[in-house]
Amino acid sequence: MEKKKKGISTDSYKGVRDFYPAQQFVQNYIIDTMASVSESFGYSEYSASILEPTELYRSKTSEEIVNEQTYNFTDRGEREVTLRPEMTPTVARMLAAKRKELSFPLRWYSIPNLFRYERPQRGRLREHWQLNADIFGVTGLDAEVEIIALASSIMRTFGAEDSDFEIRISDRALLESVFDELDVSVDERASVMRLLDKRDKIDDFSQKLSKLTGDKSSKLEELLSRASSSKNLEEVISRLETQGIKNVVVDTSIVRGFDYYTGIVFEVYDVGDENNRSIFGGGRYDNLLSIFESEALPAVGFGMGDVALSDFLETYGLIPKYESTTDLYLCTLTADLVDFSNQLAKELRSEGLNVEVNISNKKVGDQIKLASKKSIPYIICVGEDEVKSEKYKLKNLETGEEKEVAKEDISATIWS
Amino acid sequence: MEKKKKGISTDSYKGVRDFYPAQQFVQNYIIDTMASVSESFGYSEYSASILEPTELYRSKTSEEIVNEQTYNFTDRGEREVTLRPEMTPTVARMLAAKRKELSFPLRWYSIPNLFRYERPQRGRLREHWQLNADIFGVTGLDAEVEIIALASSIMRTFGAEDSDFEIRISDRALLESVFDELDVSVDERASVMRLLDKRDKIDDFSQKLSKLTGDKSSKLEELLSRASSSKNLEEVISRLETQGIKNVVVDTSIVRGFDYYTGIVFEVYDVGDENNRSIFGGGRYDNLLSIFESEALPAVGFGMGDVALSDFLETYGLIPKYESTTDLYLCTLTADLVDFSNQLAKELRSEGLNVEVNISNKKVGDQIKLASKKSIPYIICVGEDEVKSEKYKLKNLETGEEKEVAKEDISATIWS
Repeated sequence: MEKKKKGISTDSYKGVRDFYPAQQFVQNYIIDTMASVSESFGYSEYSASILEPTELYRSKTSEEIVNEQTYNFTDRGEREVTLRPEMTPTVARMLAAKRKELSFPLRWYSIPNLFRYERPQRGRLREHWQLNADIFGVTGLDAEVEIIALASSIMRTFGAEDSDFEIRISDRALLESVFDELDVSVDERASVMRLLDKRDKIDDFSQKLSKLTGDKSSKLEELLSRASSSKNLEEVISRLETQGIKNVVVDTSIVRGFDYYTGIVFEVYDVGDENNRSIFGGGRYDNLLSIFESEALPAVGFGMGDVALSDFLETYGLIPKYESTTDLYLCTLTADLVDFSNQLAKELRSEGLNVEVNISNKKVGDQIKLASKKSIPYIICVGEDEVKSEKYKLKNLETGEEKEVAKEDISATIWS
Repeated sequence: MEKKKKGISTDSYKGVRDFYPAQQFVQNYIIDTMASVSESFGYSEYSASILEPTELYRSKTSEEIVNEQTYNFTDRGEREVTLRPEMTPTVARMLAAKRKELSFPLRWYSIPNLFRYERPQRGRLREHWQLNADIFGVTGLDAEVEIIALASSIMRTFGAEDSDFEIRISDRALLESVFDELDVSVDERASVMRLLDKRDKIDDFSQKLSKLTGDKSSKLEELLSRASSSKNLEEVISRLETQGIKNVVVDTSIVRGFDYYTGIVFEVYDVGDENNRSIFGGGRYDNLLSIFESEALPAVGFGMGDVALSDFLETYGLIPKYESTTDLYLCTLTADLVDFSNQLAKELRSEGLNVEVNISNKKVGDQIKLASKKSIPYIICVGEDEVKSEKYKLKNLETGEEKEVAKEDISATIWS
């Protein structure tokens, strides 16, 4: 971004984005699509403030995040505050607070902005938006089947072909059974899972595994590669297949970064050559309410971030072309026609049209250029003739087509 | 809010709100109405991060805010960061950064969340949302006329009667001419304007004015009360009247809290007995780019906060009743009908219906109760009969009406 020589810098804060109307259009497209597909599955929207008490993140499992990657500060009343780095602790807090009033199962979604203090890079920013879609209160695999079907439906609604992405699933229970068989200690399990999570990114996986687990390592590697599926995974895969979702594969390296997943986990991968990596993921996490000492609540969900997603959409040419929300621009041939044009605009707005009236001192040619630059599809120039005849030349700025219409036919013509 | 005896508190951070689906519905109604009316006038949406460099607020005019009411902290890279307390400095930064690429005049709107460290009270929270609608690049009164018409249109769209609220306008130039006449110094002017801004809230206005301006005070008070209008104010009022907006009155006590207004200012007042006070306001502020040493850019706009507005809507019974975004709930008579129901739901979703499928172990009666509690308007119970016949009993949960329909008629029946 441009820096001014004098005065205050016009740069945004590092690692966050300014959304001018062109960028806002894309952002709205992403957010609206996430929301409408979630609602089509019966999910209800909730939200909360980005400000949370820091203690919410001080549970054992997310300690790492609180210390290294969060924005924390102390407010003027000596309260410790955190800018939420993820939505799950917030939704857990909300569920625990109204547990008795809420009727389960619940299908909830939210598209919060989240904050992480990290070096900005491709796919990672300090602020991003993330769809959180969850089913609370269902223990059976119906929930996993639905949540993966929802993830698939969102990808397809964005225009992704099933051949562009793969849904890789695994089962924590599968890993645990291998660990049990080899008597791997609890401490070792956590380390091995973290290593598995990075398997794709490192070259010396076997060496590192051997360092962690000693003489068990070769047997462990063998069992992990053999442990290619489980009854639950097979059921989820076959039920998704009957729904026409066939790009689901078992991948035991999928363990997910967070320690709180308790059952089936999944990640959606871009399988193209250009950008081969995880786009988003989720799974079952039945212990989410433990920090509130509230009774266990089964939960299955996923978090889909806007940054990695829009990288994917760009790679596959799936970002839509900018469209103005304005339908019609009213040019004014002279300044004294603004009041008349305002009145006309008012009537057209009451019919549902979005109408902008020229109030600049520009010449008509420049007014038309401006409307065109803003991608407004239709224009009417208001002059004395139009005031007298109440007939208007409605011009389509894309095709150049022009049509004379009466006032009461303007909106119908635009919508036709 | 409820506190748990053990574990972490389930309270939100002080002075901010949790939006459960019922509250989110109201919030979406408010935000969507603000957005759609703004778009109907040809305004384009923009947005930015809540994180801004603190120096953005260190201009002379907003020093008070930076010191006392903002959330400031230093990030791990020693950058001073502020949670934006208002949107204008952000939009000024964005305009200054792309000044040369942007085509003026611009009509822009945004509905950001803003943060102020203050004692939470009715109408004031630490986080609120605020519509910012602005016209940039127009010097003439056309801009004032339009921005006030937009404010009026938003109020009417929310269902407010013109008799419920009043648009009080004043002109900074009018005050300045009175000050000029009495040779009031620049320092005194600022203090007098701050006092005028509070005139409604204090009993000893005359005494305080006399303390500030000494022997000029009685003459000043007289001139202020006589200075009842200006040519510009008259023009704005009469042009709004021709558009059918007749609840506009001159009120010289309207000076607005910020020092940056340079011309006509206005405030929209609730004139009812219960809640008589300012709901929101705005005006002309032509110096917004001065801190960037950028050429002056004329600007007219307003900021409409969600908290004061929803108090107003509540007072007048204008908050709409909760409606679910889900159209149809599919009960399942037995667990093995979930896959069939998922398939049916999938087809109906492709027609545009929002459909929730039961995946709980609840009995049918309890499933229906749950759908009803969630305000879902329609229900179909899927059993073996329905699977065989492909005929479904579609029940309207509000009226109790039931109708047997074929699969391909379900969505049309719901929309009819």
